[in-house]
Amino acid sequence: MVRIGIDLGGTNIVAGVVNDEHAILAKAECKTNLPRPAEAIMDDMARLAKEAVANAGLTMEDVEFVGVGCPGTCNVNTGIVEYSCNLDFKEVPLQAELQARVGKPVYIENDANAAALGETVAGAAKGANNALCITLGTGVGGGIIIDGKIYDGFNCAAAELGHIVIVCGGEQCGCGREGCWEAYASATALIRQTKAAIDAHPDSRLAQIAAEYGHVSGRTAFDAMRDGCPIGQAVVDQYIFYLASGLTNMVNIFQPEVLCIGGGISREGDTLLKPVMAHIERDRYSKYSKHQTRLCAAALGNDAGIIGAAYLGKQ
Amino acid sequence: MVRIGIDLGGTNIVAGVVNDEHAILAKAECKTNLPRPAEAIMDDMARLAKEAVANAGLTMEDVEFVGVGCPGTCNVNTGIVEYSCNLDFKEVPLQAELQARVGKPVYIENDANAAALGETVAGAAKGANNALCITLGTGVGGGIIIDGKIYDGFNCAAAELGHIVIVCGGEQCGCGREGCWEAYASATALIRQTKAAIDAHPDSRLAQIAAEYGHVSGRTAFDAMRDGCPIGQAVVDQYIFYLASGLTNMVNIFQPEVLCIGGGISREGDTLLKPVMAHIERDRYSKYSKHQTRLCAAALGNDAGIIGAAYLGKQ
Repeated sequence: MVRIGIDLGGTNIVAGVVNDEHAILAKAECKTNLPRPAEAIMDDMARLAKEAVANAGLTMEDVEFVGVGCPGTCNVNTGIVEYSCNLDFKEVPLQAELQARVGKPVYIENDANAAALGETVAGAAKGANNALCITLGTGVGGGIIIDGKIYDGFNCAAAELGHIVIVCGGEQCGCGREGCWEAYASATALIRQTKAAIDAHPDSRLAQIAAEYGHVSGRTAFDAMRDGCPIGQAVVDQYIFYLASGLTNMVNIFQPEVLCIGGGISREGDTLLKPVMAHIERDRYSKYSKHQTRLCAAALGNDAGIIGAAYLGKQ
Repeated sequence: MVRIGIDLGGTNIVAGVVNDEHAILAKAECKTNLPRPAEAIMDDMARLAKEAVANAGLTMEDVEFVGVGCPGTCNVNTGIVEYSCNLDFKEVPLQAELQARVGKPVYIENDANAAALGETVAGAAKGANNALCITLGTGVGGGIIIDGKIYDGFNCAAAELGHIVIVCGGEQCGCGREGCWEAYASATALIRQTKAAIDAHPDSRLAQIAAEYGHVSGRTAFDAMRDGCPIGQAVVDQYIFYLASGLTNMVNIFQPEVLCIGGGISREGDTLLKPVMAHIERDRYSKYSKHQTRLCAAALGNDAGIIGAAYLGKQ
């Protein structure tokens, strides 16, 4: 038997057929094409599930269940997406509607939680009983795994790890608060910080590199730093300070076995992880503990959400 | 059968005999008298356990087990207190040593975690599956209950909830970091903030009240505020801002069913809780969730640790 994991994103919908070894046998995908009604999106999800199964040379007879990772608050008990800002979903009975369309049991979960489960069953946190996965993207996403299962609070809305204030009264966050970790440590924040440094230092190597690329990305400051630019170095140092401050908070709260960092910036590898780890080692409360959290980069990239979603009925 | 809970503090050691209804039938206590060797402290703990049982008109035959709440990192798997700054314990085999002295199974746990368990089985968070208990005292202590059990991370050092930075680069915290929640929201911090306001406004009603009392406590600014003093009001407003900022972080991370506030300042009741709740309601990420965290004052006071410790073998 195989399982289907669907990653329902604001840009793309991807369905993957996953086997018992957590390998993706085949995929099918389409654009989410927002804005459009939930019904049309669910029609596409069902179609992609069947297409992916056909692409794997299988039939729906071979499918045990379908799992969906969806942005927003997914009530896993009722199967209803209570609210998704990205998709403009309010009280959408995703589980029941998709079940009717595919004729298989359907499980739903918040997308960041599904990705954290994916990394825990098959990725960077494999084998860990307690793990935290943080994704540095447009925002700072988070997933909490406790005793091998997703922790999502009593109302399925927990693990909004990017929305902890680390600078009271600081930068405005999209969520309405001031000073959220997300406003300092997301890729979006790093790009904003890089642009500010370019404006302040138009003659720097950082500004040159940005001009050569024709745009500013989460990589620009790192590249300038590697090229010996002190302005690029300062941007990276400041970014790492904020990122590590929030990560140390997570260590002091959770003491997870594995703390896994995903998103484009995590591809910097040791350039990012080593100074972050040095900050955590200096600042964590558990200086005297024999066992310490392992920090690592996520391993599965965009497949984490599919693999995790395909495991929802198993956890 | 009854159970014994021992609250091992830096100032006092208290043993309580607890029945199946979580009522404390009798107590025995003595000063901790630090500094002294762990052996002497454990002798006293065993003596107090037996004394409390005698005070309840029972014998050790009636005792199922002994639970201990102890400050610091308590490895619940090995029964060893790995490190306790307050007690100057390093690698103390508390479970084995106390077991040898009382002839009953012994369970150990961090004191704040034990208190959180106490509030969850018999206090303000009774009946909640997921709860957070925050104690505002010398520091900001925390305990996390998930699925009715203490969550303490993979190395038993989790739930240092006071040691999350909420003001990056802010006030020096005793743990070595700058800007911890504890440095803004503990009773100690409120006293420091009150003293600073008195120094800056020596003619204020706040300064008068402090002079009348002969000292500054966590209550002074609240009393001045109640007496119409704008300086006292400003101290309370600022304190509540920092307290609520950290509590909102906790809601966004955990979405606990109950968030319970203990320590002397929690005796302010609605004067504290209402403005804190207004801040949380405005700032929480889960604005659209049907179910929301209930904020309340702790109910068991200093008995929470005893009642929780006496439940350690049951969770």
